[in-house]
Amino acid sequence: MILRNIAVALALGLASAAHADPLMIESQGSFFIGGHDVKSDALSGLSAYDAAGTVTVDQMYVHYQVPVAPKGLPVTLIHGCCLTGKTWETTPDGRMGWDEFFVRAGFPTYVIDQVGRGRSAIDPTPMNEVKTGKRPPSDTPPVFSAGHEAAWAIFRFGPKYPEVYDGMQFPLQAQEEFWKQMVADWAAALPRPNPTVPALSQLAIKLGGTILISHSQSGIYPFQTAALNRQGIAAIVSIEPGGCPTGDLKPYVGIPTLVLFGDYVDLSPRWAPRLKQCRAYAEEMQKLGGKTELVVLPEIGIKGNSHMLMQDRNSLELAGWLVAWLNKHVEMKRQQ
Amino acid sequence: MILRNIAVALALGLASAAHADPLMIESQGSFFIGGHDVKSDALSGLSAYDAAGTVTVDQMYVHYQVPVAPKGLPVTLIHGCCLTGKTWETTPDGRMGWDEFFVRAGFPTYVIDQVGRGRSAIDPTPMNEVKTGKRPPSDTPPVFSAGHEAAWAIFRFGPKYPEVYDGMQFPLQAQEEFWKQMVADWAAALPRPNPTVPALSQLAIKLGGTILISHSQSGIYPFQTAALNRQGIAAIVSIEPGGCPTGDLKPYVGIPTLVLFGDYVDLSPRWAPRLKQCRAYAEEMQKLGGKTELVVLPEIGIKGNSHMLMQDRNSLELAGWLVAWLNKHVEMKRQQ
Repeated sequence: MILRNIAVALALGLASAAHADPLMIESQGSFFIGGHDVKSDALSGLSAYDAAGTVTVDQMYVHYQVPVAPKGLPVTLIHGCCLTGKTWETTPDGRMGWDEFFVRAGFPTYVIDQVGRGRSAIDPTPMNEVKTGKRPPSDTPPVFSAGHEAAWAIFRFGPKYPEVYDGMQFPLQAQEEFWKQMVADWAAALPRPNPTVPALSQLAIKLGGTILISHSQSGIYPFQTAALNRQGIAAIVSIEPGGCPTGDLKPYVGIPTLVLFGDYVDLSPRWAPRLKQCRAYAEEMQKLGGKTELVVLPEIGIKGNSHMLMQDRNSLELAGWLVAWLNKHVEMKRQQ
Repeated sequence: MILRNIAVALALGLASAAHADPLMIESQGSFFIGGHDVKSDALSGLSAYDAAGTVTVDQMYVHYQVPVAPKGLPVTLIHGCCLTGKTWETTPDGRMGWDEFFVRAGFPTYVIDQVGRGRSAIDPTPMNEVKTGKRPPSDTPPVFSAGHEAAWAIFRFGPKYPEVYDGMQFPLQAQEEFWKQMVADWAAALPRPNPTVPALSQLAIKLGGTILISHSQSGIYPFQTAALNRQGIAAIVSIEPGGCPTGDLKPYVGIPTLVLFGDYVDLSPRWAPRLKQCRAYAEEMQKLGGKTELVVLPEIGIKGNSHMLMQDRNSLELAGWLVAWLNKHVEMKRQQ
């Protein structure tokens, strides 16, 4: 506990923000963004509930906390594949999540569940139509879960399950608690672009300016959001994105952007090409005069980070580093 | 805002708890209870993710906040059908949810997502086995959503969609936001008893005493939990349960229990028999010397409440009434 408090206090640069101090919340709550009604004749196969009716789908769940006397712009935390907003909460080994850290650092903090995951609804119609023979079995939505064994390499805990990279900082002693965070992923069953993207745009506009912090599968979403509409996007932090923008990069010029990777990337056949592609994107952005920085943590002396760096043992030090980056590169002023 | 603050302050019986005052949190976070590993050959039909592997399922997501200087035992808020823990957060019309109200009233507050819903994972294996022809279409999990039209009568906004009961207090002007809270329900696809029940028991034991507050579909869960193991169950509040216990009632004697119904119950063919059955249960409990009370709100002069009474316009007054009931009937002492 003492060590944790010291780590948080050091990371935030002020003793008063230590974990043992009460968290002072000005306001908190939750709401939805987006969503639309669809009519269906296959909502249910159970006698207690009518099969015919209207449901609302494609909305995005948002939970927020605003600290007393906020010092920064709102940050929006966007989870990746096969996970939910839980990604940013208490770490598997029971340490403070980035959600609370950012609030303690003075940032109003918004945590979303991507459309079709967590508290954001899916439409059961195609499943029920398959069940009752109205559609062929192949029309079952392409829903997938990442198994522990495959996820192990994807999350770069080690080269393959159950081998561990030397010095790797994910809290493997709490591995079971991490597996419990993983959920079935409906992303491939959703309309394109993923409705999470326009919902993020609506959220950014509603907030009058937010820093979009995305991860992995959602790494590209802030860029897709900016391509839709730059309004309300104060900065982009894309952590270990599945891919960086290609094609016309002009929509991203002028938006302070950080692309952040952890360790062992070049050892991973999945991630090495993605880093290479992001390096090419960052170089291209610099030629265009974009405020874009790509940071690979071991290249600045921070070693051992997995793909789930917001849960690694040094997660709060990384969050502190990120807060410093944001304070240096982002004008903390709401657009009204 | 002023009216809201006055309502909260009156409900809590102390001016210092008004909403405009900062919320002082001693600790907050989230974790999972329960869960077990299953092996599958049908986790995915996408090339990016292996079909074979292990996933963890049947865990229950728990989010909590502990106020500074807690005065009461932990309360555990358990949502009902086709909903998630969102039930207890910000109301559709943007007022404080019971989650925050209980924290402000001094109770450590735990909000769960039932197993298989929200941030609690489902197993996609049966869907993928149907999709690939390994199982017949009829093996598709019986997943259902309640359509707006059917839900209208179930939630007793009115006798049938879109008619409204006289004086009904649900904030219909924010109806769209409520529809967005509704999710597809996997309860009928889960093992029996619902794994949420043993998870609630584990949570109660872990907390060393908690007041289980359930709603509708989950109304029976605290009783099922007590039948498993009374340890850690300090009280039961069952709001508009789908059914009350039958058979051997001895496990519930000695547990302070409140069964609470709103208004218009006798006008509803769905709910009238349930209230009648719960009245019979409460009478039987009184014969056994059980500390059981059944309250129908209009019978104590509180009128207009729908099935979603934790979101009705008078939701905070009801929460204040409930806090008073708890303080009168429950010994606020942890079992260690």
